[in-house]
Amino acid sequence: MTKQEIIDNIKRKQSFLCVGLDTDIKKIPPHLLKEEDPVFAFNKAIIDATARYCVAYKPNLAFYESLGVKGIVAFEKTVAYIRKQYPDQFIIADAKRGDIGNTSELYAHSFFEHSKVDAVTVAPYMGEDSVKPFVACGGWVILLALTSNRGAQDFQLTEDAEGIRLFEKVLIKSQEWASDEQMMYVVGATQEKMFLEIRKHVPHHFLLVPGVGAQGGSLEEVCRYGMNAQCGLLVNSSRAIIYADTTETFAETACREAQKVQQEMASYLPL
Amino acid sequence: MTKQEIIDNIKRKQSFLCVGLDTDIKKIPPHLLKEEDPVFAFNKAIIDATARYCVAYKPNLAFYESLGVKGIVAFEKTVAYIRKQYPDQFIIADAKRGDIGNTSELYAHSFFEHSKVDAVTVAPYMGEDSVKPFVACGGWVILLALTSNRGAQDFQLTEDAEGIRLFEKVLIKSQEWASDEQMMYVVGATQEKMFLEIRKHVPHHFLLVPGVGAQGGSLEEVCRYGMNAQCGLLVNSSRAIIYADTTETFAETACREAQKVQQEMASYLPL
Repeated sequence: MTKQEIIDNIKRKQSFLCVGLDTDIKKIPPHLLKEEDPVFAFNKAIIDATARYCVAYKPNLAFYESLGVKGIVAFEKTVAYIRKQYPDQFIIADAKRGDIGNTSELYAHSFFEHSKVDAVTVAPYMGEDSVKPFVACGGWVILLALTSNRGAQDFQLTEDAEGIRLFEKVLIKSQEWASDEQMMYVVGATQEKMFLEIRKHVPHHFLLVPGVGAQGGSLEEVCRYGMNAQCGLLVNSSRAIIYADTTETFAETACREAQKVQQEMASYLPL
Repeated sequence: MTKQEIIDNIKRKQSFLCVGLDTDIKKIPPHLLKEEDPVFAFNKAIIDATARYCVAYKPNLAFYESLGVKGIVAFEKTVAYIRKQYPDQFIIADAKRGDIGNTSELYAHSFFEHSKVDAVTVAPYMGEDSVKPFVACGGWVILLALTSNRGAQDFQLTEDAEGIRLFEKVLIKSQEWASDEQMMYVVGATQEKMFLEIRKHVPHHFLLVPGVGAQGGSLEEVCRYGMNAQCGLLVNSSRAIIYADTTETFAETACREAQKVQQEMASYLPL
């Protein structure tokens, strides 16, 4: 999917919501456990209920891998279902991969050619040759810049001799590897004022903001500081939508929650 | 496996060799392709041929994931086979994971409780709460410090205002999260003199050195600079052993290559 197509979808749907499919078999409504593939059954219902209010889905691989082979099958089925039923959705494999060149190439092949997702989240620690194979494979890289967790302080905020912090260096350096047509950045929503500094380095890029909802970020502040003229944001919500209701009415509730977020988003959109 | 058990195995076998199971279906001898599970058949033969000369195996997850569900099955079978036949081997899942706390917890559960490996390689970018769940789950963390690839220069060598480079900061900070009984570090063998500086920070830790063999590091230099009184090294070789011969005699050749490395290692060992 091209950057322009993402922008067009945001404009048409008046939403920049990404629904995080962090599907935990211990948290899904108990009546689904009798299904042959409970994780896929849950995802399918959530997707059908939310697709008109969002522009992206982000399955987090850890949740699928924790179930072994069955989980991988559920992941593949989920991606294939979105691809077929909702071809306008941007699919992000939240995998935080990154390894030496020939190994990153294999990961890229797995995600872009085998699973056919649009984007993969990638960790920057190993530098250029760990990131570029994903770009070379034709997909989007969503590079970790400033994450929303407490541990982000340990290394990401370290200043170099010129006062440039590590996450800024990641933003600066990585622009040599791909343009804003193939790269986005993960930026944690709990540090709203950081957005101003981030936008100095990457005014035109899309930012994936993972921390709104259960992680406590404010959508209004994210938009005030992070939005650009073409929106430039994908804001993720996982638990606050998919686990809003853990009874048989979970899909209807997820639909209402997604709609609420979409309506708030529409009020901030410049498009 | 405890640190002392690893040391005892090294002493008994006179080897600190880790065989990297980077099994690429495109590179294995063609006659294996008629097997039901060619990747597992290859691994089994390699393991049987090399187990007496090494103390660890390191399957790299990218190679298995690139084959989809079949690859995951081959990975699980490989780990189970080593566990059962060679219980003195230290098994490292080379996965370079790392995510927010609840997600790292799921990865830790997958690797330590489901797959039952001894150690997982982890990327440090997201800091404390991305690393600690692996420790809490009772396994070993092998944290990326200074990697052997070209991209290591992009961020790992960045100096902060006090002249401390990022990889050093990782070594210093991470010692607050786990002791040398549960943490090791990845240190690239192509930068031999860096070992002296690394040993200043972590004199007693084990280091996993990935770059000897096809990646070009010199075992002699690694030992001269990196070894401590209890060895403190696991040196990995993948391609130079497992692909030394791509005909039907691949296992015999791998056996000879592993033995050659073991003999050289014995000559450097202080134990």
